[in-house]
Amino acid sequence: MPSENMFSVYGRMTALPGQRDELIAVLRDGLHASGDGGLLAYSINALFDDPDTIWLTQLWTGKEAHEAATRSERVAAASRRIPSLLAEQPVGFYGHAVHVGSQNSTPPH
Amino acid sequence: MPSENMFSVYGRMTALPGQRDELIAVLRDGLHASGDGGLLAYSINALFDDPDTIWLTQLWTGKEAHEAATRSERVAAASRRIPSLLAEQPVGFYGHAVHVGSQNSTPPH
Repeated sequence: MPSENMFSVYGRMTALPGQRDELIAVLRDGLHASGDGGLLAYSINALFDDPDTIWLTQLWTGKEAHEAATRSERVAAASRRIPSLLAEQPVGFYGHAVHVGSQNSTPPH
Repeated sequence: MPSENMFSVYGRMTALPGQRDELIAVLRDGLHASGDGGLLAYSINALFDDPDTIWLTQLWTGKEAHEAATRSERVAAASRRIPSLLAEQPVGFYGHAVHVGSQNSTPPH
């Protein structure tokens, strides 16, 4: 996995009661829709302490790839479904990956 | 990458001014020290908007593997160095990975 200029996204979202699994399905749809356009890795995680809250991480080849995916119709369609599933404003951060390691890839460097 | 029972960790930390790179080095030391004990993947990310803040994600084979690593002397030694580098209390969440995808691994399922 390239370590230079990787663009990283973190998001945390709290779903309306009973809507968490639908939220996860919509997020997964959006990520799959952009999967060939520079999305290197992602994870969607459920909190132990709060059954309605998830956090999401994404690693992209670069900021431009992420922005291009966000503009695509399939990803935009998924994104439009998200607000109606949320109990509160999502929290998000953008940054770059300083170090990445995986047992399935080359050793971290 | 197995998708069952993966234990996930998220942390966000703000370093004292000028200490961010040292914080990253310590976190990396700790992750490398536990690397053979069930740590599947990790990333350390620098925020665009705040040069002192990083977020960190980890995927483990399970909660037990994470706890065993935390108890190991090398990881504990790294962890003890962290508080003195921070400007404020860290934020952390534990959970499980619901979906994980990577261009370097098998397709998400």
